[in-house]
Amino acid sequence: MAMNVAYTYTNGHSSDRLDLDARVQDALEAIDHRMVTACDSDVTVLRDASRHILAAGGKRYRPRLTVLAYLACGGKNPADVTDLAAALELVHTASVVHDDINDHGVMRRGRPSVNAIWGRTFALLTGDFLFTKVYELMAPHRDLNVVLAEATVALVEGETLQAQAVKENRFTREVYMDIIARKTAALFKAGAILGSRKAGAKPDVVEALALYGYNIGLAFQVIDDILDLTADSIQLGKTSGIDLDQGRGFAAVADKPVEDPMEAIKRKAFSGDTIQKGRDQARVLVEMAIAQLDVLPDSAAKSALVSLAHQTIDRIN
Amino acid sequence: MAMNVAYTYTNGHSSDRLDLDARVQDALEAIDHRMVTACDSDVTVLRDASRHILAAGGKRYRPRLTVLAYLACGGKNPADVTDLAAALELVHTASVVHDDINDHGVMRRGRPSVNAIWGRTFALLTGDFLFTKVYELMAPHRDLNVVLAEATVALVEGETLQAQAVKENRFTREVYMDIIARKTAALFKAGAILGSRKAGAKPDVVEALALYGYNIGLAFQVIDDILDLTADSIQLGKTSGIDLDQGRGFAAVADKPVEDPMEAIKRKAFSGDTIQKGRDQARVLVEMAIAQLDVLPDSAAKSALVSLAHQTIDRIN
Repeated sequence: MAMNVAYTYTNGHSSDRLDLDARVQDALEAIDHRMVTACDSDVTVLRDASRHILAAGGKRYRPRLTVLAYLACGGKNPADVTDLAAALELVHTASVVHDDINDHGVMRRGRPSVNAIWGRTFALLTGDFLFTKVYELMAPHRDLNVVLAEATVALVEGETLQAQAVKENRFTREVYMDIIARKTAALFKAGAILGSRKAGAKPDVVEALALYGYNIGLAFQVIDDILDLTADSIQLGKTSGIDLDQGRGFAAVADKPVEDPMEAIKRKAFSGDTIQKGRDQARVLVEMAIAQLDVLPDSAAKSALVSLAHQTIDRIN
Repeated sequence: MAMNVAYTYTNGHSSDRLDLDARVQDALEAIDHRMVTACDSDVTVLRDASRHILAAGGKRYRPRLTVLAYLACGGKNPADVTDLAAALELVHTASVVHDDINDHGVMRRGRPSVNAIWGRTFALLTGDFLFTKVYELMAPHRDLNVVLAEATVALVEGETLQAQAVKENRFTREVYMDIIARKTAALFKAGAILGSRKAGAKPDVVEALALYGYNIGLAFQVIDDILDLTADSIQLGKTSGIDLDQGRGFAAVADKPVEDPMEAIKRKAFSGDTIQKGRDQARVLVEMAIAQLDVLPDSAAKSALVSLAHQTIDRIN
């Protein structure tokens, strides 16, 4: 089975795959458009600040995941997931706007943060606005709404655990994993569930896709934290070292609490050992994620999910 | 018809009314309990900060409105609106937690604000948490969910318009009315719609109740702003004069933009003229609200809605 997946992946750039790439690109453009129209408002600062952060792009992993999960589960019309994927990406967008307030982040996605341009008050309200737009977009989708609502709760809990761990100087491997499971993996998992359920996938397939999403979410965040420690701001497009300054991030993976997270982070980060461990762990998570895809029939969309899993770790920003 | 309503009101403390009061009290206790259980979390700071602001009480106008609208429209089991009313009050609660960050409010409902105890970062996350809990509570209620989602968007827009008006020094009567319509009246209106629709009321009755809620919401905010100008912190239970310091509040009702909102506010506030105009306007709004209740058959719940309308203006905090 694993062979099969690898074969499909390495042969992915067939005409089927090119067709798929075009379809996914169209779907992502529709999702971007939907986010912009959803965030229209006669309150110009909310409209402008929302457009500013949305126009900056971002990697769009989450909506891509939803679209691919939908197609890989046999979904025929990607427009069916436009609102769901737009809502999913808006949860992430709202959280980064609020995150930049708490972290005093001045750069985001290669542009000044909402906070840096409009100030703290409007950044707080813009984040609230984006959260309420998630809520509005999802309101008609009863059952799927519960999925995203739970992931959004988890995200806020994860951000809070992180702030609490920094404050209490309590960073262990368990704390770190709990934080990234909630603040990142829960939303990736939700994206995979939304796509597969909308395609009418059976419960075991939805469960497999959920685990796929969860594991690549973990891998994504581990790599994100490693990049934050090693890359500069231009490469990342955001204020780098913030995660470091706040005393969090991947290198904080110690087996027991340390006295000063900053010192421990720097020592571990620059010894190189923790970074390698993190990369190894991310690779294992990606392999576990790909193994879940065995429940799916071969397709260009399935190959693209394999590629997506690899991309979470094979990236420079 | 108006006679009828007045008659019911002045004779409201019949045994029917006492029965009703007990039922409403029970319903409000269930709603309070639901808010606390909804905001449970293993992330202790979110749980504790949520409980802190919830335990402080507050006037609970919004859930009371929902329960009474439900009963006045023939609803038999107030437990049907527990989740809806809890979500409605949580929207309000989330907004005050975030409001206290932007306004540096240190007192709220007679207690230190979340901001004052846990600091800005955790207050921001607690507000986000409360918003996500609204979303989670409402997720199963498809059609009604849209009602609350729209009101929540309006609330954030109203708060933003207010911050923008302060920043741009642009306070006219129209701007003020637009702000309070969105930040307060929209949520009162939603509360009335939720209660009446859950009771199965016909569209014209829902529409009448919606207007009732909207008008008492406007009256409530006008009086709130007047109280903020005239009362001290102990009476109000929140940091008074914040609305004044931020250059907003009822007294800012001028017919054209003024140079310095602070100066204009003080001049107008202490001349007494604007305050009297505000009280007069609130009284008219309450009368308009009560007139909408003509569509309802007489009942103890209808009388209680009349009382609730009067209470929005006959209060000292």
